[in-house]
Amino acid sequence: MQPRLPDMPTVPYYAVIFTSIKQPEAGQDYVDMAREMEDLVRNQPGYLGHESARDSLGITVSYWDSLEAIAAWKKEARHRMAQQLGREKWYQHYTIRICKVEKEYSF
Amino acid sequence: MQPRLPDMPTVPYYAVIFTSIKQPEAGQDYVDMAREMEDLVRNQPGYLGHESARDSLGITVSYWDSLEAIAAWKKEARHRMAQQLGREKWYQHYTIRICKVEKEYSF
Repeated sequence: MQPRLPDMPTVPYYAVIFTSIKQPEAGQDYVDMAREMEDLVRNQPGYLGHESARDSLGITVSYWDSLEAIAAWKKEARHRMAQQLGREKWYQHYTIRICKVEKEYSF
Repeated sequence: MQPRLPDMPTVPYYAVIFTSIKQPEAGQDYVDMAREMEDLVRNQPGYLGHESARDSLGITVSYWDSLEAIAAWKKEARHRMAQQLGREKWYQHYTIRICKVEKEYSF
């Protein structure tokens, strides 16, 4: 299920661009963990929203009010477990980019 | 066709996050223009690469070496035509976020 496009505060805020290629064998355990992380991140301090899409490549962009909030989410205990399983079992490759959003406009 | 994950220069560089919801009737003319823009952007000064995925939402992230390069691409004549057609015919909604990439790491 696609979250709606989030209503963001005025710039600047922060974005984490997570691009990934899954292992072909990533299965129900991956889906369950992804859902668990979606639920968990919503209660994380400083979390503003996220958007994701996947075809051959997956792109998830999450939005945050500060670099400190991003660092705290990276260190969250259950999320660390998910990251480790991701490297061991689910992802062929991923890249994470931490960005400062300087301008935004919509149509 | 999915471009490979680009090899980026060291940070900082810039990212443009383009999230969009298409009109259901966006058809072959949209596909043709998207392909034309893919070809055109590769020769744009300061362009570093892009990645995209679409399911119910589309996310395209393009990477650039400067804000000036992003501004020049926005003003490129054929790209302006594509933007106008996008608003008139192809997109229900889109958001563009211009970001400075401050950190990057991969697995």
